[in-house]
Amino acid sequence: MDDRLKKQLEFVLEIDKEKNIFRQTHLSGHGRNENDAEHAWHMAIMAYLLREYSNEEVDIAKVMLMCLIHDIVEIDAGDTYAYDEEAVKTQKAREDAAKNRIFSLLPDDQKAEMIALFDEFEDYSTAESRFAHSMDNLQPIILNNSNDGGDWKEHGVTAETVYGRQRKTALGSEKLFEATDEMIKEQIRKGNLPE
Amino acid sequence: MDDRLKKQLEFVLEIDKEKNIFRQTHLSGHGRNENDAEHAWHMAIMAYLLREYSNEEVDIAKVMLMCLIHDIVEIDAGDTYAYDEEAVKTQKAREDAAKNRIFSLLPDDQKAEMIALFDEFEDYSTAESRFAHSMDNLQPIILNNSNDGGDWKEHGVTAETVYGRQRKTALGSEKLFEATDEMIKEQIRKGNLPE
Repeated sequence: MDDRLKKQLEFVLEIDKEKNIFRQTHLSGHGRNENDAEHAWHMAIMAYLLREYSNEEVDIAKVMLMCLIHDIVEIDAGDTYAYDEEAVKTQKAREDAAKNRIFSLLPDDQKAEMIALFDEFEDYSTAESRFAHSMDNLQPIILNNSNDGGDWKEHGVTAETVYGRQRKTALGSEKLFEATDEMIKEQIRKGNLPE
Repeated sequence: MDDRLKKQLEFVLEIDKEKNIFRQTHLSGHGRNENDAEHAWHMAIMAYLLREYSNEEVDIAKVMLMCLIHDIVEIDAGDTYAYDEEAVKTQKAREDAAKNRIFSLLPDDQKAEMIALFDEFEDYSTAESRFAHSMDNLQPIILNNSNDGGDWKEHGVTAETVYGRQRKTALGSEKLFEATDEMIKEQIRKGNLPE
């Protein structure tokens, strides 16, 4: 096996570990905690099926790939709960170190490509990154909405905090933010999320 | 929320169940059984990173999407272990019924598109489907190789049976079949897979 393929397969094996990084979100049907790989899979399919709602034209292959790889850094950095203010402060430094270690397993050209794609996602600087973030926000809302807001209750989160994050969905898709807003309002009405 | 978006979001919620369909393959590090969503996520990233080894030019977005959706039918039909001859006999009927129920949650145009994509995968009829199958074969080989052939030992599988399935990887990628062959031979040499 030549060196290039060997490196690629080492990376492929390494990212298997993402399946052991668990999120705060629970699966539908009041299931177990979801892991990062499952979350990314779900986002990528959603991106494809909901692409008609992107505010701007997107390269959908790029959005899907961005969704698939955006949490690989959490293999080292761990999952940072979006509403945990202390953890969010150190998130960037932890994720940068992880990014360098993990993508360095790849051949140089693919390392550079994957790091650029990850950075583009983080920067919200393109239509693709904004739409991918809309998926990153919407996916747990759909699960949490199906579970009567259980994840919010567990962490004592308020509607204001949820909107703080979820409003950014409108940067990628006005239409999907409207749907998000409907789901949040429904949970407030049901008493599952304090205003 | 309009009817089209409501249908799309119902489908998105339904496929969450794929995360509860467990395969015979175990995660690296002698981990737990892998589920279908994780497997599909892994395959889609592999498809992108290894596309240079496809025998034929492929539309990589299509390959990735095919990888992501190819096991959705298992939500109803369950996972069929590739080396379980009895289960393989009824697999097509079980999966066809599942395909119709699950993809019918989508708006008609997307239902037709997803069914066509699933059928294309099953038929091995295009370069994309052949390369996607190479990923479907290679992904568990990488995990099983890292786990000293544990999944084969558990099921008493022989090299002949493994080659029966894995040889098809060459239809999508000669180069990746060579790598597969190397891994299988290594496991035979180590006594983890009887000839």
